[in-house]
Amino acid sequence: MNQFVPKDINYENRFRDSFSKQMIMQTIGVSIASVAPGVVELDFKHDSNLTQHHGFIHAGIGSTVLDSACGYAALTLMPRNTSVLTVEFKTNLLSPAIGDHYRAIGKVIKAGRTISVCEGELYAFKGEQQKLVSTMTGTLICVNDC
Amino acid sequence: MNQFVPKDINYENRFRDSFSKQMIMQTIGVSIASVAPGVVELDFKHDSNLTQHHGFIHAGIGSTVLDSACGYAALTLMPRNTSVLTVEFKTNLLSPAIGDHYRAIGKVIKAGRTISVCEGELYAFKGEQQKLVSTMTGTLICVNDC
Amino acid sequence: MNQFVPKDINYENRFRDSFSKQMIMQTIGVSIASVAPGVVELDFKHDSNLTQHHGFIHAGIGSTVLDSACGYAALTLMPRNTSVLTVEFKTNLLSPAIGDHYRAIGKVIKAGRTISVCEGELYAFKGEQQKLVSTMTGTLICVNDC
Amino acid sequence: MNQFVPKDINYENRFRDSFSKQMIMQTIGVSIASVAPGVVELDFKHDSNLTQHHGFIHAGIGSTVLDSACGYAALTLMPRNTSVLTVEFKTNLLSPAIGDHYRAIGKVIKAGRTISVCEGELYAFKGEQQKLVSTMTGTLICVNDC
Repeated sequence: MNQFVPKDINYENRFRDSFSKQMIMQTIGVSIASVAPGVVELDFKHDSNLTQHHGFIHAGIGSTVLDSACGYAALTLMPRNTSVLTVEFKTNLLSPAIGDHYRAIGKVIKAGRTISVCEGELYAFKGEQQKLVSTMTGTLICVNDC
Repeated sequence: MNQFVPKDINYENRFRDSFSKQMIMQTIGVSIASVAPGVVELDFKHDSNLTQHHGFIHAGIGSTVLDSACGYAALTLMPRNTSVLTVEFKTNLLSPAIGDHYRAIGKVIKAGRTISVCEGELYAFKGEQQKLVSTMTGTLICVNDC
Repeated sequence: MNQFVPKDINYENRFRDSFSKQMIMQTIGVSIASVAPGVVELDFKHDSNLTQHHGFIHAGIGSTVLDSACGYAALTLMPRNTSVLTVEFKTNLLSPAIGDHYRAIGKVIKAGRTISVCEGELYAFKGEQQKLVSTMTGTLICVNDC
Repeated sequence: MNQFVPKDINYENRFRDSFSKQMIMQTIGVSIASVAPGVVELDFKHDSNLTQHHGFIHAGIGSTVLDSACGYAALTLMPRNTSVLTVEFKTNLLSPAIGDHYRAIGKVIKAGRTISVCEGELYAFKGEQQKLVSTMTGTLICVNDC
């Protein structure tokens, strides 16, 4: 089902290494749920330190985790000695982000040499229930690592 | 210069009250720089807990503060007993978010009865220098307060 | 698979009636390929009058058809005596729009009372080949018909 | 006021030459109002062949002209023997596009070596009145001419 072939067989280590340097991921309490070529899933728990005025996870925090999921999904398909930067993203908020925990899924829909495009989905989980909270479309650029 | 007339003369208190309930603003360390009808400016300092893998402020964190600036800019023009929710936003990352401190400016470009549209700009300040880091366009909806 | 139940059983006539009033659809040569609750598919042929400087269908023309597909997908789920307007949309161009003919698919991902969110995909067909040309996320609003 | 210095002094001819190849511009009836480094203004008249179901100019047609204005604004700052492609754009519809004639203004807000970001505004003119119809943010890429 997954049609992408990574250019760097070491893609997972490269992703985990970069993820560990994103200090904001630790601040939010994000953990890696899964990684495959072109797909990254990130988890985090509800935390009242991350909320807006109704007690929902702030749209920007959901976007932070979605942006990392999308960016790293793109990175898994980039060659060695490169890094990824976000050019732009757009997010639609579909339901209040209120749950016990959340999962952000980032998927590559186009892997270009310079530009990649990813789509993301953020889900809230409460007991047995799962709800789509927001979607993202992001444009990423491959840059030489320095 | 500011053509907007607030429907609720108490708009500033309403904004400050709602802002104080956004726990994420405290987590990021955001303070109110200014508020006027249709315009809100928010400040925060550089904090390595908010960074991505190059040590820049994570795009999602800049978006979090921009989204609050835009949402509250819209709120200043909404009637009493209403609240604001983000429908969607889009952000472009123009320069690395690396500075001593940052200012997010949110401005209303259309104040509708139901839907408002805002534009935001995030600036990084380093010594004497000021740089435009990212822009946002956001769509906000006015909802009855509960 | 389609989980949407239309509020107005007459949704198809309402869509066809509105579509016939969009003069731009005739100018581009768009025909209705299919309609179901929450999904609309629109077809058009390659036409050199619609091209940009490389001879591809102009991004804005692909967006025009995608926007109509998304808007009408949303309309199929709206109650009687309402109409649909686009609040905003965002499109990513993934491949050059060059083919014999094109199909725009619009799907509702959230049908709200006021706000609906749709996703669209534009495909180019050339001989046996099918290619994803662009994607769209659009926000639509339900308004009373006048 | 205009801080951009073109890399190619021949930028205006290059723009006019490319514009003349966009057949869709002739189909819509678009003319060049002005060009300067980083800014392009395009005009078109109201035409009932370009309308949606309320008789307004279709959002996608406004976007087509805005996208060309933004793309060509970016092109004015690109080096010789290059061309411009749209990576993505996002547009917000603020008022119905109903007037006697329309002007689309595209401005560069970041001119990068590979990626440029532009903002656009579409105005409707009716008698003495001018109204902001829609805004655009677009991401453009510089490609080698073939």
